[in-house]
Amino acid sequence: MLPPAVADYLLNNRSRHLAELMDLLRFPSIANVSGPGEACAPCAQWLARRLEAAGCTARVVPTTGKPNVLAHAPAAAGPDAPRVLIYGHYDVQPADPLDQWTSPPFEPAVRDGAVYARGANDNKGQLFTHLMAIEAWQRTLGLPVNVTLLLEGEEEVGSPDLEPFIHEHKDELAADAAVISDSSFFADGVPSITYALRGLVYAELTLTGPNRDIHSGEYGGAATNPINALTAMIASLHDADGRVTLKGFYDDVLPLTDAERRAWDALPYNEATMARFLGAPDGRLGGGEKNLPALHRLWARPTLDCNGIVGGYTTKGSKTIIPAKASAKFSMRLVANQNPQKIEQALSEFVSANTPAGLAGELVFHASSRPVMLATQGPAMTAAQAAMSEAFGKSPVLIRCGASVPVTELIQRLLGLDAVLMGFGLPEDNLHSPNEHFKLDQFYRGSIASAAMLGTLAGL
Amino acid sequence: MLPPAVADYLLNNRSRHLAELMDLLRFPSIANVSGPGEACAPCAQWLARRLEAAGCTARVVPTTGKPNVLAHAPAAAGPDAPRVLIYGHYDVQPADPLDQWTSPPFEPAVRDGAVYARGANDNKGQLFTHLMAIEAWQRTLGLPVNVTLLLEGEEEVGSPDLEPFIHEHKDELAADAAVISDSSFFADGVPSITYALRGLVYAELTLTGPNRDIHSGEYGGAATNPINALTAMIASLHDADGRVTLKGFYDDVLPLTDAERRAWDALPYNEATMARFLGAPDGRLGGGEKNLPALHRLWARPTLDCNGIVGGYTTKGSKTIIPAKASAKFSMRLVANQNPQKIEQALSEFVSANTPAGLAGELVFHASSRPVMLATQGPAMTAAQAAMSEAFGKSPVLIRCGASVPVTELIQRLLGLDAVLMGFGLPEDNLHSPNEHFKLDQFYRGSIASAAMLGTLAGL
Repeated sequence: MLPPAVADYLLNNRSRHLAELMDLLRFPSIANVSGPGEACAPCAQWLARRLEAAGCTARVVPTTGKPNVLAHAPAAAGPDAPRVLIYGHYDVQPADPLDQWTSPPFEPAVRDGAVYARGANDNKGQLFTHLMAIEAWQRTLGLPVNVTLLLEGEEEVGSPDLEPFIHEHKDELAADAAVISDSSFFADGVPSITYALRGLVYAELTLTGPNRDIHSGEYGGAATNPINALTAMIASLHDADGRVTLKGFYDDVLPLTDAERRAWDALPYNEATMARFLGAPDGRLGGGEKNLPALHRLWARPTLDCNGIVGGYTTKGSKTIIPAKASAKFSMRLVANQNPQKIEQALSEFVSANTPAGLAGELVFHASSRPVMLATQGPAMTAAQAAMSEAFGKSPVLIRCGASVPVTELIQRLLGLDAVLMGFGLPEDNLHSPNEHFKLDQFYRGSIASAAMLGTLAGL
Repeated sequence: MLPPAVADYLLNNRSRHLAELMDLLRFPSIANVSGPGEACAPCAQWLARRLEAAGCTARVVPTTGKPNVLAHAPAAAGPDAPRVLIYGHYDVQPADPLDQWTSPPFEPAVRDGAVYARGANDNKGQLFTHLMAIEAWQRTLGLPVNVTLLLEGEEEVGSPDLEPFIHEHKDELAADAAVISDSSFFADGVPSITYALRGLVYAELTLTGPNRDIHSGEYGGAATNPINALTAMIASLHDADGRVTLKGFYDDVLPLTDAERRAWDALPYNEATMARFLGAPDGRLGGGEKNLPALHRLWARPTLDCNGIVGGYTTKGSKTIIPAKASAKFSMRLVANQNPQKIEQALSEFVSANTPAGLAGELVFHASSRPVMLATQGPAMTAAQAAMSEAFGKSPVLIRCGASVPVTELIQRLLGLDAVLMGFGLPEDNLHSPNEHFKLDQFYRGSIASAAMLGTLAGL
């Protein structure tokens, strides 16, 4: 039970906390932007100052990419109180297509009980709930636990610098429990704790043919067409049953347990409702492998999705060329126990073996992270379940998630901790899409859940 | 034999004629541009004035798209002299990618004995040779034949308004011979007359899935991915042997004759040389059907080439989305006796039958033209052969061409005339590519060939 003083503090500071979140959302902290428009470093500085104001010692730590923020706040009871590691990320996805936003992505706006901005949910809004909770304890009863915060600046580009960073700061990050709020409820009104995440391999394949765009009449049938070949190569990565054809792709996939199968069947998931929510023209979910329920395809099966493709003439009307090159970005979501390195190796071999005559193929890997499966029992899980129940009035369900949060597997492998994934987002929050938003009710209740979990971990 | 007075006139006016061509090349007369930057109408006006100056009566005739120029010049011997129809087009291909041009596409520059600009060869440079020839006759001995000129403004977008235009002006366009200079030599030093052109069907397929870009982790495996599906649909249009799989695609294709096969074997065509010229990374020509010589694939076989493709995230680095839509532009080059309407029908049926669950498919046709096969004998052909021999010092070879010039088939079908395709371009002129150019020697000799042909047709 969260002490009333802490709960009241959170209640009384809601509008200031929201205003501060909106300040944080104004930074266009897209990790793959560099140069003059680069907003990650200023955003990290802002967060460090804000954490100091909440009663932490905080610093910005450079990496070879975007900096991380590291902060500590001591327990009132001293260093022997439990240690809790909280992770969040302040970098955000790119905001395009910009013309599909109702209000500009980096000018946060409140409407219909939600705050709209790129990062409103993922992950600035969610990480801010922990900052509010820490401040509430510090300004009232003092923290019941020792808190370490790690706020990353490269999550949306696959956390390329995080493994060496955690290695280097292993002692400083050591903890008895870890909590991450970078996930979602299964549905509005269905509080959820996530126990498995997919991993990722993100690749880009470029096929280069003629050294310039050439006339498709003069050379069509002779010169190899990079787009024709790219569509053939990409298409051949799936078979007619929607299975990925890469050699050994499914070899290490853990089968779903009967218990999971039963639990998932009991979840309120309706494929037609989801297809409608996503706006599928025919109301159907046609992705992934044939003859499996959508939840199984999302949570327990690996996928390969193209994220972007471009080549040749793409503006209005027609131009009769064979283009000089074409490229596709595509990502594979991996499930436990697939190994990203084996998948990358299989993909490299595929490109070498299948690039047709007349073309050169170049494969670049943009990101890689391992899938993770977490413990569903233990003191941290118990504390999180109690905290979620208190904040949202309902016991959370245990779910998996199709997305990736690379730090989770690193915390497990390098720090020996199974983090608790206690997320406050909702599926309809438009993560990675135009009009991303975060419901204010989830935001405020999230801070109560965070504060309650810190108390429960201390045995309060 | 071209009368010395006419030949001398052409020789003495070379620098002025080149300066005038460069003025013509400054118009960015791209047919699919509309609005304030639209340069087709001003270009047509310029041409009409220039033709008046050369001794024609000329006018700009509007269409539902870009206007055409119609001009007439009477024979000195009166209306009973033979009537010759000359066709050219003043519209040009789009000029992008602009950063690959050494000098800007609409600021013509002379270097290394050639004029560089979009349209330098295709078709402003070639059509101007006829204007020079008409002027030379008019200013010296008077024209030996009655000339009608048709200069089109929509050839590069498939001549959508030309069939009704020719219908409407049938009497005015009636002639005893037709000549078109919108083709190339087989090779530098190998004058050529083209007797067959491929037709065209140009289509664009757009697949729409979710109503916004969505998170590829949260929905990957459930939502249908428009890029995955587009690559699969486009790839399935070819089989493993490089043959197009559309129903009935090859049904009407005329087989190559033994005489053609022998003639083509004698042509100086080297696949490795061509691949090097095009810059293929491995020096190979891998387009079209397997196990056929490249010339057969180019001239006697239909093809399907993607001209552009776009969807999702296409800029730097990574973004993990399933995009809302993806689209591809692709064109089929057709050979005699394929029917574009039958092909369009087959493609529409293909899209209806193969758009997967979760997506909507939209097919748009941008252009359509029939293939054409022309007579290789007759008075016009004989006159052209003599004229080419006189201008270039060598008898022309008879070749086919993989490209399309829609008017050729319309002149055959609507006016009952097999045009002579007497082109002065060279294969290395970069048609439709950056750094398009036209060799000045071909330009000047082309005007001699045109003038000589007019004389020969009159029996001079």
